[in-house]
Amino acid sequence: MPAPKPWEDLIPTQDVTSFASGAAAIARPITAGTRPALVIVDMTLAFVDSAYPTGHSETGWPAVAANATLLDAARQMGLPIFFTQAYPDPYHVVTPAERGRWKTQGAPPVSSDLPPGDVIVDQLTPQPGEIIIYKGAKPSGFFGTPLASFLTFSGVDTVIVTGMTTSGCVRATALDAFQHNFHVIIPHECAADRSQISHKVNLFDMHMKYLDVASLEETLAYLSATTAA
Amino acid sequence: MPAPKPWEDLIPTQDVTSFASGAAAIARPITAGTRPALVIVDMTLAFVDSAYPTGHSETGWPAVAANATLLDAARQMGLPIFFTQAYPDPYHVVTPAERGRWKTQGAPPVSSDLPPGDVIVDQLTPQPGEIIIYKGAKPSGFFGTPLASFLTFSGVDTVIVTGMTTSGCVRATALDAFQHNFHVIIPHECAADRSQISHKVNLFDMHMKYLDVASLEETLAYLSATTAA
Amino acid sequence: MPAPKPWEDLIPTQDVTSFASGAAAIARPITAGTRPALVIVDMTLAFVDSAYPTGHSETGWPAVAANATLLDAARQMGLPIFFTQAYPDPYHVVTPAERGRWKTQGAPPVSSDLPPGDVIVDQLTPQPGEIIIYKGAKPSGFFGTPLASFLTFSGVDTVIVTGMTTSGCVRATALDAFQHNFHVIIPHECAADRSQISHKVNLFDMHMKYLDVASLEETLAYLSATTAA
Amino acid sequence: MPAPKPWEDLIPTQDVTSFASGAAAIARPITAGTRPALVIVDMTLAFVDSAYPTGHSETGWPAVAANATLLDAARQMGLPIFFTQAYPDPYHVVTPAERGRWKTQGAPPVSSDLPPGDVIVDQLTPQPGEIIIYKGAKPSGFFGTPLASFLTFSGVDTVIVTGMTTSGCVRATALDAFQHNFHVIIPHECAADRSQISHKVNLFDMHMKYLDVASLEETLAYLSATTAA
Repeated sequence: MPAPKPWEDLIPTQDVTSFASGAAAIARPITAGTRPALVIVDMTLAFVDSAYPTGHSETGWPAVAANATLLDAARQMGLPIFFTQAYPDPYHVVTPAERGRWKTQGAPPVSSDLPPGDVIVDQLTPQPGEIIIYKGAKPSGFFGTPLASFLTFSGVDTVIVTGMTTSGCVRATALDAFQHNFHVIIPHECAADRSQISHKVNLFDMHMKYLDVASLEETLAYLSATTAA
Repeated sequence: MPAPKPWEDLIPTQDVTSFASGAAAIARPITAGTRPALVIVDMTLAFVDSAYPTGHSETGWPAVAANATLLDAARQMGLPIFFTQAYPDPYHVVTPAERGRWKTQGAPPVSSDLPPGDVIVDQLTPQPGEIIIYKGAKPSGFFGTPLASFLTFSGVDTVIVTGMTTSGCVRATALDAFQHNFHVIIPHECAADRSQISHKVNLFDMHMKYLDVASLEETLAYLSATTAA
Repeated sequence: MPAPKPWEDLIPTQDVTSFASGAAAIARPITAGTRPALVIVDMTLAFVDSAYPTGHSETGWPAVAANATLLDAARQMGLPIFFTQAYPDPYHVVTPAERGRWKTQGAPPVSSDLPPGDVIVDQLTPQPGEIIIYKGAKPSGFFGTPLASFLTFSGVDTVIVTGMTTSGCVRATALDAFQHNFHVIIPHECAADRSQISHKVNLFDMHMKYLDVASLEETLAYLSATTAA
Repeated sequence: MPAPKPWEDLIPTQDVTSFASGAAAIARPITAGTRPALVIVDMTLAFVDSAYPTGHSETGWPAVAANATLLDAARQMGLPIFFTQAYPDPYHVVTPAERGRWKTQGAPPVSSDLPPGDVIVDQLTPQPGEIIIYKGAKPSGFFGTPLASFLTFSGVDTVIVTGMTTSGCVRATALDAFQHNFHVIIPHECAADRSQISHKVNLFDMHMKYLDVASLEETLAYLSATTAA
């Protein structure tokens, strides 16, 4: 029996039934391909930890733990593994063209006692052979990056997308993975967001349209079955 | 004084204040460029009218009326104007590769008494010289289409995005317009969605990050001021 | 023993030996993947037949015959098959944004006795289930089109590129296929160009860098071996 | 009177006249836009200097001098300036997915006495505010990079493309600039290639189709006239 979805306390019945396939479709099992890869989006100090103005420790650190479990399994199964962060140099000075059209006021000043924020947390440090995608200030891990071509090189047909934030870079990356015609899975414990209503509604939107939002347990079971086959 | 935002009855205060700039940032005025274009997304019978399984007359037809007002102004001001729909032929038979990885069950059978759904509504019929972007089954008007290159040709720096649905093709198109480094404005009366919670939360997400969600009146005032300059 | 290459009468020895791997690399066998697709570029009347200002019957019609042989084999082997042409409607009136920045004077007036040029020749008519990519006025079959995502959907790792013209749309399409990280093969009898020096030098360039230029016979042998495995 | 073109000793008359507009079109003046940017492709030790297996000092160092003249003018005129090289770290260890499908044998071993090759030559060192595009192992400065979005941010309508090699990364980058609907100019003294026949034929191909191949002097005159206006 499928695990409950994280938006069940929020979405009104009429919004569920506005979809022709409705409630029945919500409880469907994962359907995906046989050659999966893992893409971990922006699990950096700047998003995980509340010491940084864009961070959210309450949901970020539990998501780190869930990603560590998933990453460990993916490594044992030999999956292609990708990470995203902003820039190759954590002290990179962002030019206006790189910053683009964000409506936020930009990265607010951070206490000089803190390490730079654009650094993947220690628990998820990439290993040699795993690729870091530097996506600059853009939400999608595919936009202006070679990620799609690397997935093609790897012969992948399925992308597991995790990270932060659900309503920002995770949604943008998962949407592009879907548009590139990969199967996509989001294990929801591995995604997090500052705004809880945004977290839940974005997962609902994506599950009803583009991909499978599943539990970490369901995702691990899919991976075990797939890589054993 | 800025017009109220459509999500004000829904988003909890704690989700607003999770953004550093918070409530103050919500009421900001439009900031955009000086060379705008209009992109009207999927205002087709299939999405506008409840006679079709993906349609929603209650919000769709009012959005048609709002778009007609905006389109009339844009034509008088000589803006570059683009429309999206799925295929060049409304009777197009979709191959599996074109359909891709949608989690919906595909277009359900439609009564043979109905005209084909992938047709832009009469009130918004494109005129000669205006370009229709055929984006197939993908959400973004930019994905797998020449839209970005047409905007470059037109010397545009700002894109007004409207249409249906807010949480689907409008969000995907507006996100890509932002990622391509255009200024983006969504006049919210010109966008609609079957799910009201998705409509509101997606507008909130986009306004807090990528673009200006404004009223139609504010958008028309921006256009008047810009094209008069 | 590999077949001779079409540029052997033209390229000076010093230009060959400017490559570290030099002459030895020219005679290498095909190395490609196991899941090939066929992409036939712009084999339309406008390019094949000299009745049209951009056509070249002397090389175009022999290329049609070679493509017919390859297409027949590809269909028997069940390969995913794609064609490109410019527009969905052969009478399409091209807007300035669609035309873009071409340095040619545009399609010169064609005798009204002729059928429209943007029509694939009868010998290579697409069958149901085969996809036509409408790439507008741009050279690459990938630029502003969903071709890459369709190849991903099809699980392809190798693309056989043919058509006209070698120095124009074939080179642009093959280059992008290479950049997307597909293996690429061009069977040179299936490609043609108005300019013979451009035809030969472009094949040389591509063979020394990006892909395998092979004979049609070598390509058919690769396909037989691959699809039998 | 337009300057002579570098291919005049090579291209047979019949190949010129295969174009409807033919010889007359070759001598045309530059036609471009009013908001130019400069993109200098791969002017790194690895391509410029024959000490490296992919380098060609005989044409590379003169191209460095010509680029230095152009770069100086572009800086005085305040043009947006972009450079490309492969990786952010000159000691980057290339993974198989990053290397992709090159038919060359990869970077051959370089004497350990030499500095790393993926470093822009001293004469063209980027200044603060100028952006380096890291395009990995792919030819085009646009493929898998944010270059197009940066040009959009900068409000550019024209791109001057220079660098090495003409038949490789310069052609791929100029082709994509054309496809994105920018006007494109290549000042031919600022481009170089190991193979002279490839250098000349690629310039011919591009001039007859996509862009203006001009002399450095003609390009500087265009820039002076444009930025003065």
